[in-house]
Amino acid sequence: MALHGQNFVGYSLSTEGSQVINAENPVNGETLEGNFIEATENEINKSCELAKKAFDIYRNKSGKERAAFLRKIAEKVMDLGDELVERAMAETGLPEARIRGERGRTCGQLNLFADVAEEGSWVNARIDRAIPDREPLPKPDVRYMERALGPVAVFGASNFPLAFSTAGGDTASALAAGCSVVLKAHPAHPGTAELVASAAIAAAKECDMPEGIVSMVHGLSHEVGGTLVKHPEIKAVGFTGSIPGGRAIFDIAASRPEPIPVYAEMGSSNPVFILPEALNTRMDDIATGMSGSICLGAGQFCTNPGMTILLESAESEEFISKLADNLAASPAGTMVHSSIKSGYDKELSAKLEAAGVELVARSSATTDNPATAAQPALFRTTFANYKENSELNKEVFGPCTFVVTCKDKNEVEELIEGLEGHLTSTVQGDGQDFENYGNLLNLLEKKAGRLIINQYPTGVEVCASMLHGGPYPASTDSRTTSVGTAAIHRYARPVCYQNFPQSLLPDELKDSNPLGVRQMIDGKY
Amino acid sequence: MALHGQNFVGYSLSTEGSQVINAENPVNGETLEGNFIEATENEINKSCELAKKAFDIYRNKSGKERAAFLRKIAEKVMDLGDELVERAMAETGLPEARIRGERGRTCGQLNLFADVAEEGSWVNARIDRAIPDREPLPKPDVRYMERALGPVAVFGASNFPLAFSTAGGDTASALAAGCSVVLKAHPAHPGTAELVASAAIAAAKECDMPEGIVSMVHGLSHEVGGTLVKHPEIKAVGFTGSIPGGRAIFDIAASRPEPIPVYAEMGSSNPVFILPEALNTRMDDIATGMSGSICLGAGQFCTNPGMTILLESAESEEFISKLADNLAASPAGTMVHSSIKSGYDKELSAKLEAAGVELVARSSATTDNPATAAQPALFRTTFANYKENSELNKEVFGPCTFVVTCKDKNEVEELIEGLEGHLTSTVQGDGQDFENYGNLLNLLEKKAGRLIINQYPTGVEVCASMLHGGPYPASTDSRTTSVGTAAIHRYARPVCYQNFPQSLLPDELKDSNPLGVRQMIDGKY
Repeated sequence: MALHGQNFVGYSLSTEGSQVINAENPVNGETLEGNFIEATENEINKSCELAKKAFDIYRNKSGKERAAFLRKIAEKVMDLGDELVERAMAETGLPEARIRGERGRTCGQLNLFADVAEEGSWVNARIDRAIPDREPLPKPDVRYMERALGPVAVFGASNFPLAFSTAGGDTASALAAGCSVVLKAHPAHPGTAELVASAAIAAAKECDMPEGIVSMVHGLSHEVGGTLVKHPEIKAVGFTGSIPGGRAIFDIAASRPEPIPVYAEMGSSNPVFILPEALNTRMDDIATGMSGSICLGAGQFCTNPGMTILLESAESEEFISKLADNLAASPAGTMVHSSIKSGYDKELSAKLEAAGVELVARSSATTDNPATAAQPALFRTTFANYKENSELNKEVFGPCTFVVTCKDKNEVEELIEGLEGHLTSTVQGDGQDFENYGNLLNLLEKKAGRLIINQYPTGVEVCASMLHGGPYPASTDSRTTSVGTAAIHRYARPVCYQNFPQSLLPDELKDSNPLGVRQMIDGKY
Repeated sequence: MALHGQNFVGYSLSTEGSQVINAENPVNGETLEGNFIEATENEINKSCELAKKAFDIYRNKSGKERAAFLRKIAEKVMDLGDELVERAMAETGLPEARIRGERGRTCGQLNLFADVAEEGSWVNARIDRAIPDREPLPKPDVRYMERALGPVAVFGASNFPLAFSTAGGDTASALAAGCSVVLKAHPAHPGTAELVASAAIAAAKECDMPEGIVSMVHGLSHEVGGTLVKHPEIKAVGFTGSIPGGRAIFDIAASRPEPIPVYAEMGSSNPVFILPEALNTRMDDIATGMSGSICLGAGQFCTNPGMTILLESAESEEFISKLADNLAASPAGTMVHSSIKSGYDKELSAKLEAAGVELVARSSATTDNPATAAQPALFRTTFANYKENSELNKEVFGPCTFVVTCKDKNEVEELIEGLEGHLTSTVQGDGQDFENYGNLLNLLEKKAGRLIINQYPTGVEVCASMLHGGPYPASTDSRTTSVGTAAIHRYARPVCYQNFPQSLLPDELKDSNPLGVRQMIDGKY
């Protein structure tokens, strides 16, 4: 199937503009088939207006209907077969197993949110029954549930062409909640985006969904995203990417006449603390585990362990050597775009130019395309030096880790207090470590969304208990998650119904509870 | 007890500044006893730093300990006895029964949040157990619960000297969640604020709470609030007040290096739709109910019904006459401050100067102090005129309602689509009204936090199902409520614990569930 390169404005294909976006194969630098046309302001506005119309219909569809739609999208994505896998591989350089795995995760997320929508208890139904003879004032009948927020703008992410893009987590949770979605395709993988969007549109038509339930616009310039976020019908934004990109979107949304929530998942170095006993008992295992986690996906995971904290000791020096050896011997990874690879080099160089920072190891391996080949690296400094230079706090996005050595527990605690927010933080500890360094976890809780003991931060389980987010700048809204079933609450707000007759209440709030959802009644479940 | 007028910086009383704030009795215009000293930047910063230190201790206190503290505050507020009632009356002009009722509500809120904290299930504990032999990858043990967000800034509200001020709903919910609080006293009732703060501080000491758990600063200038909101240790803001005030705080918070959530409850006209059959069957009742709701508390309720929508008909004209007669015959209300009364006059005049807006009635009653006497009023226009002038959308804060008449259902629906967000919207309907105008409720759901049938919007029940909030500008965060037990989630964020040994998990997430909280296990309750 040839790629048409057009924008999906509701059920129409549209190419009013002339700015062409081409994708590049990061494995060999070749330009890929397909001319993708940047959306015009008019196309973006039309998409948003259609999304508003669709929202008015779709928000009243039952959880069962939404679930059927989500499942159909998953089915249609699978129906794309090898064409999707090959295009996603070509646009991102990610290996086949990873793309197939990510496709599985994407469809798994769609089906998981389908289950959540269908089961229906996610709305947090609450019922307080009337007490007409209460003194001094009667108590009214008051009921509460979450309802869809409105049309949502979702930005595709560079590093996850499927799971955090067109039909990714934000789209799945927004559709499950009852929102319509206007997608902004990532310009590095517009073909993958087109294929998945065509699957979503086909599913929408088959499920008799209103036009505008899903639209998708292409864009290379910042204007496309800015126009989308400014549109008055857009009521929330999902984004995964860099701090400057996410912050720019956040600032635009906050300065609207009607500010709207932005869920931007941005930078995180995911600090890993390796405590003395763990180092003594599992040094080789941890060195292997860390280098695997650092190099996974060419270091392009949001949860990549970009910072490693050790206590000064002979064992720590031995560990640094082992980890350095592992990384020096690791192959170069192909990054999804040459701009990401040049960013990696630039960020790493900036760190190495700072006083007191030493490069311990950098793999000399390369690939067929040096423009996208990222060499794993390890660089280090002392805490005394680290704390003098706030620039050292900044993330380096790629397959590397920054080792900071601390003299003692006090320095470790001071380091933690000075951290910005991160998606995750990991502690490797055995035996007495947690007694000796127990306060670390307590302090880290203020700085990270997910705390991990004796595992590695890469790999995000999609489940009810997952929290993928964290204090700023890991996320612009630490109260929410982008992964796991709790993500549905990002795209909903509570509505309260006072003194409604049963017939006018949503099913979730009826005394007869026809959907069998969990209800809190008079403050108790 | 003489009022000292000092700022409460942790457990110290402090007056570094020289700017004096005096309160005025709105009933007679007399200056009240007490020189309250505006806080300096240094005092504000110290309060925030102490709040951070207190947070590090307090957030790890058990729900039981927090509950004991909250209950002790309520006890100490009651211990203030008539002194508090008299001072609050003198500073606000609100009648004794209202102040006693509000004190009861305030203590009721403190005790309600104590129960919520003690019971513990509010944290939304979620547990996904490990599946070590899952293919292709093992499933890790992942657990999730909400934890306190950090030190919170709370702004006292002019119209609720107790229930939305020093020990009001935001303070109670923030303390229940495990946050420390820095209060900004409202300059119109600094003596009430001092008395309640002294009660909270006494309770904190008696419960052995860390210094900084509660501080309170006085301020007349915008700088005090701005300095507080900008402080890096402050992690969220609660505010109730005007749109310009709330938006200014929101903008400051959004432009911080680390943006923080602002829960500003601002303007709302709380539109009331009166449908034909209801008008036919209950005209006198509704006219009485509406005028009571409009005049309650001199129209100084956030939920005051400032807008009334009717369909053009002879009955509607008759109803307007009756409501106008009721309002014209109503006594003037004493507003809490002369600036609020002059605001009311100004806003009302601006409306009456607009083309096509007619004053139907305005009470000529006054009080002993014309500077604070608000005359109930009714003014009207047609929808055709209303839609031409977006200024007519603006709230008039005071005892009045703006009647907009619509030709037909289409105009009513168009009016709703053009509404901004409101805290509430009410529909009066009987018999066939909801069949004939059923879509109204559906459309209103997008525009209001709370929908009410056949009751009146003033009066906000404090219960689990209450939603006091709504789309912007009713609130800057429509996903949350300022009243009711769900308010606790404003001051919390989820934290995820992966592969933690049982001994290191918070009690709420342990397999043994020692606190007996509700746990979602493997996606099911």
